[in-house]
Formats: sequence, C-alpha cells, structure tokens
Amino acid sequence: MRTLSKEDIEDLATGAAVLGTGGGGDPYLGKLTAIQALEEGYDINIIDVGEVPDDALVIPSAGMGTPTVIIEKIPRGTEIINAFRALSEYLGREVYATMPIEAGGINSTFPLAVGAKMGIPIVDADGMGRAFPELQMTTFHIHGIPVTPMALADERDNTVLLKTCDNFWAEWIARDITVRFGGSAWIALYPMTGKELRKAAIPGTLGLGQKLGAAIREAKEKRESPIEALLESSNGYEIFKGKIIDVERRTTGGFARGQTKIEGIDEYRGQNLLVQFQNENLVAIRDDRVFACVPDLITILDLETAIPITTESVKYGYRCIVIGISCSEKWKSARGLEVAGPRYFGYEVEYRPIAELRGK
Amino acid sequence: MRTLSKEDIEDLATGAAVLGTGGGGDPYLGKLTAIQALEEGYDINIIDVGEVPDDALVIPSAGMGTPTVIIEKIPRGTEIINAFRALSEYLGREVYATMPIEAGGINSTFPLAVGAKMGIPIVDADGMGRAFPELQMTTFHIHGIPVTPMALADERDNTVLLKTCDNFWAEWIARDITVRFGGSAWIALYPMTGKELRKAAIPGTLGLGQKLGAAIREAKEKRESPIEALLESSNGYEIFKGKIIDVERRTTGGFARGQTKIEGIDEYRGQNLLVQFQNENLVAIRDDRVFACVPDLITILDLETAIPITTESVKYGYRCIVIGISCSEKWKSARGLEVAGPRYFGYEVEYRPIAELRGK
Repeated sequence: MRTLSKEDIEDLATGAAVLGTGGGGDPYLGKLTAIQALEEGYDINIIDVGEVPDDALVIPSAGMGTPTVIIEKIPRGTEIINAFRALSEYLGREVYATMPIEAGGINSTFPLAVGAKMGIPIVDADGMGRAFPELQMTTFHIHGIPVTPMALADERDNTVLLKTCDNFWAEWIARDITVRFGGSAWIALYPMTGKELRKAAIPGTLGLGQKLGAAIREAKEKRESPIEALLESSNGYEIFKGKIIDVERRTTGGFARGQTKIEGIDEYRGQNLLVQFQNENLVAIRDDRVFACVPDLITILDLETAIPITTESVKYGYRCIVIGISCSEKWKSARGLEVAGPRYFGYEVEYRPIAELRGK
Repeated sequence: MRTLSKEDIEDLATGAAVLGTGGGGDPYLGKLTAIQALEEGYDINIIDVGEVPDDALVIPSAGMGTPTVIIEKIPRGTEIINAFRALSEYLGREVYATMPIEAGGINSTFPLAVGAKMGIPIVDADGMGRAFPELQMTTFHIHGIPVTPMALADERDNTVLLKTCDNFWAEWIARDITVRFGGSAWIALYPMTGKELRKAAIPGTLGLGQKLGAAIREAKEKRESPIEALLESSNGYEIFKGKIIDVERRTTGGFARGQTKIEGIDEYRGQNLLVQFQNENLVAIRDDRVFACVPDLITILDLETAIPITTESVKYGYRCIVIGISCSEKWKSARGLEVAGPRYFGYEVEYRPIAELRGK
C-alpha cells in the first residue's frame, strides 16, 4: 500500500489523460477533486492487485456520459459517492476497495476521492489501460464479468439500479439514462472479487499514469522537452505535428462525436491529419488512409506543455503534437478486437499495431 | 373479499377499457392473461380499500409504454411478476396486496394475474379512475405519494430499480427506459401503506369496470342496445356517431400520439369530430371547438358491439359512437387540473365538466 501526495495526484491527472486518448475527462477537474479530498484530511491509499484477497469485493467507480457536458455541468462530488453507496447497499456485502474502469483525467482521479471518502483503498488497475467510450469495452467484459448490477446517480439524487441480461444491454440502457440525467451520470459497476480482478484487469494503470505525468513535470523542471520525455517513458510514437484548423463536434446519442483537422508544421508542412473521435480519439487519417487506430492510443498534446488536449477541449489554433501508444496486449486478441477494434466503430480496416505501422 | 370468475374477468376487461378512454391496453389481451391465471388454478381475490390494514404495504403493478408496441410485442406474463418481485425484494417487507394504477383493458387485468400468482389479493381501487399517459398523473401524486422506488422489467429479464427526486423525474427517466426496452416495460411503483391508499386512491374502479362490462354483456344477451345500457350504467353522454375516415398515428417519445377523424352519420351527418390522443383520448374537437376534454373520459366504441376501440386499434372504416363520462371529483380540483387538465397537454382551454358542456 502506498499513499498519494498532492504532487502524485497532479502527475496522475496529467499522465492518465495521456492514456485517456482524448477521453476520460478533463485532467484539471479530475485533479481538483482528488486534491480536495486530501485537503479535507482524507488519505488516498493505493494497493496492487495482488493485495486484494481472493473473495474480497471490489466495486469500480466512474463518470459516464458526454465530456462536453461534464466540463459545463461540473459534478458536486457527492454523485459518485451516492452511486457507490447505492450499489454497495444493494449487494449487501462489505466492499474492500474501489478502482477506475478506465484511464483518464477524471476517470483515474475520481475513484481516488471515492476510496478516500469511503475509507477504502484504490486498486492500481483498470479495465482498459486507456479510455473507451462504451461500458462493455473493458477487459472485464472480455473475461466474462457482467457490468451489472450497476448504479447510476446524478446531482439531484436520482438513483438507478440496473440489472441487465448482458453487457451490451447495460450500455444501451445506461447510456440513455445519462442523456435523461442531462448528459452525464456517476456510476458504480462491474462488482467483482479479487480473484476475478486479477484475471480480468489491466494492472498498474495508476502507476503508469503517475510515471508519465512525472516524466512531463520533471522534464519541464529541468527545462528539457516534455514531449521527448513523454515519448520515451510511454514508448510512444510521434504521428504528426501541426496546428488545429477545424473541429467538428456534435453531442449525439449521449456521446461527443466529431473530428479534429490538423494542418502540418515543420516536417509535416503541406500535409493534413484528421483525427475522428467518439468521446475518445478513434482513428488518425492521413491522405485518406488510416494511419493509427483503436485499440491503440491516439493522443493530442499541447506542443509546448505536453498537456493532453481532450476531445471536449480541442479547438482551433492549438499547436499540437499527435502521438500514438501501443494498447495492452489483451486488446490485440481476436476477442479484444471484436469488442474495441476499428470495425466495431464502423471503420472497414484491419487493425495493424502502431509499432508495425510506424516501423516502416 | 370476493373471488372473480371467468365471466367477471371478461366483464372487467370490457368495462375497464371503457374507463381506459382509448388507453390502458387492449381488452382482449388483458382478458386472456387473467383468465390464464384462473385456468392454471390460481385464485383472483379482490378486497376493498377498507380491508387493507393501516400499515400494510400495497404495491401497484402495471404496463407502461406505447400501446401500439404492446399489441405486437405481446408480454410473456413473467415481466410484470419480475418487476413486482424486484421492488418487493428491494423494499424487504412483506407485501399485503397489489392493485392497478389505472383503468384499462390491460392495466386493470394484469394486476389480477400478479395478485393471483403472488398469492395476494388485489385492491378494488386505482390511482386515476380512468387511464392517463404519464406516471405522475395519479391521485397518488396529488396526495404526495412518490412514484419511486419503482421497478421496471422487460422480456429479456432486464430490470431497473429507480429512485428519483420527484415524480416528474420518475416519468422522465422511466419513459426513456421503456423506449430502450423496445417500447414497453412492466412496472411496480407507488409503494404505499393501507393508510395512504385510503387517502389517495380512487376506490371501486374494478367493481365499476365489472359493472359496465356486465351491462354491455347483459344487454346483448337480452338483444337490447348495449350502447344504451352502457350510457345508463356509466352516466355517460353520447358525443358523436360516425364512421372513422382517417387516423394519424406516430410512435414518438415513448407514446402513441395522433388523432382520429370521424365523419358523422344519422343526426351528425355533415359534421366531423376530431379526437386527439396521447395513448389516451385527450380532446374531442368539433367545428374547431373543444367539445370534451381531459380529465373527463372520451371513449370510442364500436357502434354495434359497444366494445371500446383503443387508440392503437382505431382504424379507417369503423362505425363508432363517441361517449363522454365524467371524471372523478379528485381531478376537478385546481391541483388535479394542474396535473392532468387540458393545459398540461398543451390545449389553451379552460376545463369545463362534460355535464356542463352537454347540459346545454
């Protein structure tokens, strides 16, 4: 078990937003919530997957909905606790720990506040190793763990307990509830045992987020290039550098969908890159060709600060760098690609790993 | 306590559909479900509101959604039991009885099957004295009883437990869940004590439905006019007689909305009547003037058989009679009209009781 400091949280919020691949929520908002818990005197205790007893109950917690809504309709902080409590009470068992379901500026840090306020540790793991837009896009799902029973709560103390026949139905119904809630919901879901967790989760995502955030921070302190430090610590690839010249964005079906058009600078002058997103960046297209795609990570960063620009914040004029990071091996299996590969999102292309694409 | 026979159920299905004012579900489907419970050897026991102990728990049960869907996606019968069980287990208290929330061909008879199969009686009462399209349009609501905790279930064993900050939020969220379920849901809601029930319910609706259905049946047996028998036993008013010449119907927002255009025959020759509906008939318009309106009951009946024609079954060519019946006095209060008067449905007219309109 280790305890997080304020600096750890700041690093995590930045680094997890890199893994958030455009989604997973705004790092600034996520940082404030976890730091507030510290300032109120709560401890944030992180444990490894190996520290959870086999039969102990772990309930992940998260935000769900349209990131464009969440930055305007900022949560009070009690919603996610209400969802967590509702599911715990429904299950009627002692909860050993919470954890994130995905990496991201909010979805990595909000579970810290949940753990702190509930007096339980947070498991250093998640179910994506990145962020994805839909509930069933998790390694939990790949390993047969049901999304439900699941709880959703909003800022008016509306609470929904959901039990569905499969994980696609959970996504289908929960998504619509987020829309009725006004675009976002705070959720507790995928209750599982320590044994299931060890089989199904991606371990170490919080630590990885911290490491990436620290690399960016330390490079800045040393007046070195934070981008280079990030690429090195993440084994990432530079995909493109340029200026954002257009953003199309629509809030539809409970998601933020759209595309970002980037005009090349430096060695990319004369070229354009198109990054299409559904909450998260899905594909990067250059010369009408898919250049990098899900489940690999595509992240747009501010060119000077290396701060990740989420899909709800991306706008005209940013000078940015687009990087690609290899996804967890769990996603490269046939089952993983079926759940979160390019074809699921409607792109008629075969997945080719970023290492292979960029190796050429 | 009294026990229902097959004939009682047939009478109730017909008579309650008269009170259903176009909504509340198809009487044929409703009849079959309750009779099936009898044929499987279950008893259907009806009690009066006075027979429920003050602190006993009563949970109403119902169908919710778009009637046009329910006649095509016929329920298995287990959905409503699942919803009832989910809410009972959530409350963790013994349930004394169930009851309808509204009058209608399905919503008066499905609770009979629930009571029979759960081994509990059905209270002879409801929360509308008619049918209305939205959850908060009940005398329960008028008396401050919350819709939630509420359970919704579908044929795939998806179950939702809902707890909302008010009754409008319950309608708002539950309606969307019915849409995601495919257009209909089976629900248990408005849990209340015997004491609350006596204050808030409209007593005797099942008995009234039976009486109206029996009047129609007996008149036919005696080769008398079933329409006249119905008007007499319901204190109803003849509004119009004619042939249906057009139906506009759309399934939108989880409701069946539209209008029925009727061309007059006999003494109404040369006149047209327009009946607009949202699951239930809302207003009857003649010469651009509202001629009868919610909360009073407007029911279209087959001219020969006096069988009510629900809004999902109404179609070109039916020769019909349109009748009006006075609503419960509870609806005529300022609070009642606010909840279910013509203005709530977007008609800029003052409510005038049918007795007053037809007295002239």
